[in-house]
Amino acid sequence: MTDSDALVARVLALGQGATGASSGIEVILAEPGRVHLAINRRDDLLQFKGYFHGGVISGLADLAGGGAITTALPPGRAVITISLHVNFLAPARGERLVANGSLVKVGSTVGVASIEVLTIDKGREQVCAKATATYRVVASD
Amino acid sequence: MTDSDALVARVLALGQGATGASSGIEVILAEPGRVHLAINRRDDLLQFKGYFHGGVISGLADLAGGGAITTALPPGRAVITISLHVNFLAPARGERLVANGSLVKVGSTVGVASIEVLTIDKGREQVCAKATATYRVVASD
Amino acid sequence: MTDSDALVARVLALGQGATGASSGIEVILAEPGRVHLAINRRDDLLQFKGYFHGGVISGLADLAGGGAITTALPPGRAVITISLHVNFLAPARGERLVANGSLVKVGSTVGVASIEVLTIDKGREQVCAKATATYRVVASD
Amino acid sequence: MTDSDALVARVLALGQGATGASSGIEVILAEPGRVHLAINRRDDLLQFKGYFHGGVISGLADLAGGGAITTALPPGRAVITISLHVNFLAPARGERLVANGSLVKVGSTVGVASIEVLTIDKGREQVCAKATATYRVVASD
Repeated sequence: MTDSDALVARVLALGQGATGASSGIEVILAEPGRVHLAINRRDDLLQFKGYFHGGVISGLADLAGGGAITTALPPGRAVITISLHVNFLAPARGERLVANGSLVKVGSTVGVASIEVLTIDKGREQVCAKATATYRVVASD
Repeated sequence: MTDSDALVARVLALGQGATGASSGIEVILAEPGRVHLAINRRDDLLQFKGYFHGGVISGLADLAGGGAITTALPPGRAVITISLHVNFLAPARGERLVANGSLVKVGSTVGVASIEVLTIDKGREQVCAKATATYRVVASD
Repeated sequence: MTDSDALVARVLALGQGATGASSGIEVILAEPGRVHLAINRRDDLLQFKGYFHGGVISGLADLAGGGAITTALPPGRAVITISLHVNFLAPARGERLVANGSLVKVGSTVGVASIEVLTIDKGREQVCAKATATYRVVASD
Repeated sequence: MTDSDALVARVLALGQGATGASSGIEVILAEPGRVHLAINRRDDLLQFKGYFHGGVISGLADLAGGGAITTALPPGRAVITISLHVNFLAPARGERLVANGSLVKVGSTVGVASIEVLTIDKGREQVCAKATATYRVVASD
């Protein structure tokens, strides 16, 4: 397993249930402090107007932010979310949802990440939400 | 359709994709300004430690808060979420997840709801998260 | 010094600069897990419409929430704020601003408090804001 | 009065009480969608460890964010804050506090801004907080 594979595995482990075969979340990028995730449009991810649902946006943001912190930690450490703040900026319409998480700061007990969430709508990227999340650092086992 | 049925229908309409037959969200209570929702444990709703995933908690909270505001609005009005803030307080372990949304304030353009999220773990209620969400009032069609 | 005096002293110590003689913040109540603070209207606390300024509301909320956690900790422990989320619900008009902080949860490293902020306007209480804050537990010296 | 003077006047009007002669807030930059504010260290702005107090950081962030939106609106429009979310990232030590507000999005009724707060400590800039705020657009008179 390469270093990069190991990082992807650690990101996937964070959201094991949600990122199993059936859930369809893809890890686009995983490097220390940066994790990009994506999921394709599917009926069960949409709200009443046909846009990606707020819970899906929040969940993908939470996972990308947690990944951005986890990848910057030594092996054996993972995170649990303390708080998540999401600003929804535009209808999340499109064929694909992408969450780009970046480490803002991490210490021995607490970490902060910021996340930009975009849709790909007919091939064009559009920001649909911005989020900030705070995590507690824990043992990953 | 009774008044109560109409309120339930309006709450369900908010999360149509998410609340279809397959998603399993139940409306426990829907009265003006108060909406309680629940969903039973299922593998695809869990994270790596076997607790309900942060995205599921966030999504159910968002929907319960939006319902609490929508039920207080006249027919023909619904809400879209501007921002969602969730504090995760305890591992969301248990066989059932419940979100109780309450209207804090609503005007002609903006509404605020607070939401308490609980798990039922071996029959005992335990608070796992508290959330506050801000919504914009829009036409529901 | 009574136990109660000791708690008041610990709350005041949190905001020493801000709670000096000139700042005028009063500790109305200080018991483990609950702190109520108040400040009287003064020109330098107001924004352009003559209401208490958002920064004053945020600062008093932060201090009441931090107090609510600190009073529940053993002597020698204090808190620093990780994040503060404030919902402004009504114009903060009136002759006095009150912030009632309550402990939601505290562990060995992180604590959460919720705070209700009210004005006293011609003798009537009115909620003007609700806040949630997350704190890190640290040594107080 | 130049266009730039007019923008500065509109920013100052937002925080009239807080930005009077005695408060010492300076407008470093005011252009449509971007406002930078600063305030120098003063005993009444500090908390118990001698850092800028959370309420001061929150208030300056709120004002810089509100300014970033107001400067992008036509004359006669101003904003009131709906919600403010601040992440405190490092002790706010230094001789000067700076808040750089940027417009994220504004519509006819609601606007969102992001704000970075820095200290100048012995001449070096250091980020001490990041904030996101949501505003309602109102008439300014």
